[in-house]
Amino acid sequence: MRDFLPDDVRRREHVIGIVKRVYERYGFEPLETPAVENIDTLLGKYGDEGNKLIFKILKRGEHEASGQADLALRYDLTVPLARVVAEHQAKLPRLFKRYQIQPVWRADRPARGRFREFYQCDVDTLGSTSPVVEAELCAAVADVLSELGFNDFVIRINHRRQLTSLLRTFGIADDLHETALTAIDKLDKVGADGVAAELRERGISAECRQGFLAFHGLVTAVPPAVGASASLRMLDVAEGFLGSSTMADSSYITAHENLKRIMELTQNTSAAPRMSLDSFLARGLSYYTGAIMEVNVADLPGSLGGGGRYDDLVGMFSGQGIPACGFSLGLERILVVMAERGMFPASLAMTPADVMIATFDAGGAPHALALADRLRRAGLRVLVYPDADRIGKQIKYADSRGIPFVALLGADEIAAGTVTVKHLAAQTQQTLDQPAAAAAIREGLKTGG
Amino acid sequence: MRDFLPDDVRRREHVIGIVKRVYERYGFEPLETPAVENIDTLLGKYGDEGNKLIFKILKRGEHEASGQADLALRYDLTVPLARVVAEHQAKLPRLFKRYQIQPVWRADRPARGRFREFYQCDVDTLGSTSPVVEAELCAAVADVLSELGFNDFVIRINHRRQLTSLLRTFGIADDLHETALTAIDKLDKVGADGVAAELRERGISAECRQGFLAFHGLVTAVPPAVGASASLRMLDVAEGFLGSSTMADSSYITAHENLKRIMELTQNTSAAPRMSLDSFLARGLSYYTGAIMEVNVADLPGSLGGGGRYDDLVGMFSGQGIPACGFSLGLERILVVMAERGMFPASLAMTPADVMIATFDAGGAPHALALADRLRRAGLRVLVYPDADRIGKQIKYADSRGIPFVALLGADEIAAGTVTVKHLAAQTQQTLDQPAAAAAIREGLKTGG
Repeated sequence: MRDFLPDDVRRREHVIGIVKRVYERYGFEPLETPAVENIDTLLGKYGDEGNKLIFKILKRGEHEASGQADLALRYDLTVPLARVVAEHQAKLPRLFKRYQIQPVWRADRPARGRFREFYQCDVDTLGSTSPVVEAELCAAVADVLSELGFNDFVIRINHRRQLTSLLRTFGIADDLHETALTAIDKLDKVGADGVAAELRERGISAECRQGFLAFHGLVTAVPPAVGASASLRMLDVAEGFLGSSTMADSSYITAHENLKRIMELTQNTSAAPRMSLDSFLARGLSYYTGAIMEVNVADLPGSLGGGGRYDDLVGMFSGQGIPACGFSLGLERILVVMAERGMFPASLAMTPADVMIATFDAGGAPHALALADRLRRAGLRVLVYPDADRIGKQIKYADSRGIPFVALLGADEIAAGTVTVKHLAAQTQQTLDQPAAAAAIREGLKTGG
Repeated sequence: MRDFLPDDVRRREHVIGIVKRVYERYGFEPLETPAVENIDTLLGKYGDEGNKLIFKILKRGEHEASGQADLALRYDLTVPLARVVAEHQAKLPRLFKRYQIQPVWRADRPARGRFREFYQCDVDTLGSTSPVVEAELCAAVADVLSELGFNDFVIRINHRRQLTSLLRTFGIADDLHETALTAIDKLDKVGADGVAAELRERGISAECRQGFLAFHGLVTAVPPAVGASASLRMLDVAEGFLGSSTMADSSYITAHENLKRIMELTQNTSAAPRMSLDSFLARGLSYYTGAIMEVNVADLPGSLGGGGRYDDLVGMFSGQGIPACGFSLGLERILVVMAERGMFPASLAMTPADVMIATFDAGGAPHALALADRLRRAGLRVLVYPDADRIGKQIKYADSRGIPFVALLGADEIAAGTVTVKHLAAQTQQTLDQPAAAAAIREGLKTGG
């Protein structure tokens, strides 16, 4: 877990500001939940591995010595959303679109862009099974990343049920699907032969592995399918391979039609050039029931975020199923790539103030505060140097902090109602009437001199 | 602990936005620390009562069963600041002005405006003993509250050492000061006679109680001393009472001069009409070493916030003392009063979108998404109704959510490249060319029709 010093916070807020603005443009509303949940709300939702990574909080008071935990730190933003929707159902609209940008905590081994406290930027639509929901989520994520300055990301998409059909077509028995998917999930890292080797280790027969390799060969023979219309063609390739028995399976048909529909809908949105059908995309979480998505850039192993449809999760809390679909972006992942690529705008203010008012002596301080008040009312960020140190030392402080202007208010200036404004970088200065100072400084900030 | 539904979040962000903007105008920079601290960082900093209110986190892995806690949830923002300054000293400026707006957690019994998870808005200056620091903190707090719409708050100020001198003048022995201050702290609630009674119960002699009552009578005989210059006069009253022996005490002289200086400095700031010397103000926390402040409004028992100088706390972490002074505003307290008084601006958008695009049928959906993309690029917040429900039902949804406009895109409109825009409140509608729709809706949002 890390401290965020001022420049870190400014970079984080730059990204969060864009995420919020884009999501609000899509009609998503903000939600916040407490950092702490009842432990029973979280246990059993993230699998055995997840249970171990939950931070647990000791009961208070006399029970503290018992070592019993009754609360736990938020592990993701999806389970709290499901709890909120179940708990506040009467107060929430039937169609509920929410975003949530908050930290979550996992007792994990840290890695690049991975920390024990990290922020998720989640966006979810509840109350509709329409593929418009998936299409809009992809469009919103594409807009967020484009506005942050990414121009090389790809939104991979697949469908949980289509994946199941595919595994069945390879001849893999249903009870081996989970282990097979774990192997297939490593395709990016180890290649098709590596996956085949791992499938063998996991007890998948030679015939099934052959099916996997044949299909893999088929889809990689097609030119890279980025863009909604190319992905639609890719869907047809898959269709040809799967053959009539699979194509007659109603579960497959639904999945296939759904994916096709999402692709068609994204064609009129900003996500169009980003979409890529990936028949091997699996996504770890078991609660997904429909389309699954993941967004990647080439220079980050893992993803910038991902999501999918989970129509059964809310029902675990309310008893009453509510269809839902969401996407989660990892703030730290985005920040790591932006820092490495130097993507933060130069206009991002990294200084504590636009102008520093120097202090000559105790007698001048009330005048410095009056001038500060005037400049602040004009919208400037003003730092009053509080101690009557040597002026050279004060100017050095302003320079080291990147404060562009220093206002000097000596006895002469106070008597005349003026102020001498020094521009540090340009090494120029001018003496102005105090009422004119704000405008001059603002002008100087614009022109840099 | 509470969930914040969309309207709650919007009100909170309205307040936080103003707090941030004002603090940045004063040259304060943002800092964020993790929710979780090592337990040793927190234990022993808040007194015995505080230790009990800290949420403690179980060790992970094999140690979980031991019931041992190694981490804890942040209890305030001041101790983490002291740790950060000690830990990152080389990366931080000599004069460091920071603000921090984050939640803290206390295992407390909740009350009005008091919760187990609550946000503090802290602002602190480290590295200077100048009274300019205190004066600017009071000015910044006054600006925050004024911009939020408060016009009746009072910033009470006192000095820890002056308080000590006063108790000595009453004849109270130093080892009884803590218990005496606990009694005096109730002055607002129980009045002077009530305090005298409680002082008796706490073993303070009749003579000392007489001293307290005499001084209380003296200061209440002066007209209410709100405003910096009135407070300066009040300081003279205290001076007259205390007599020559106290006035010769160097510790008292320092405190008295410091308070006077702070008052003089605030006279040129927005805090001037708010300042009120309160010779009985004590503040609970033991780490204060100089001026102490508290800000109150009449209709909230307790305070909206408070602060003071604590020159020794950072030294507890770094071994090297760094002078510090800060002010903390309670977000929830501010929100409670603002809600009760109806102080949130009517312009605060409480709707999910400016316009909803209705869906006629699946065939129309791609056109709806294209129109949404266009309107969003023009800066509008657009919600696409995802399902082809009856149009009446869709319009009812928009109306219930406070969305002012509904865009209808039927087969005729699609064929003609137009859109029919309905203003729900005015019950009017007009059919426009799609490229003209954004401007028309924006105009309608301004004029409300």
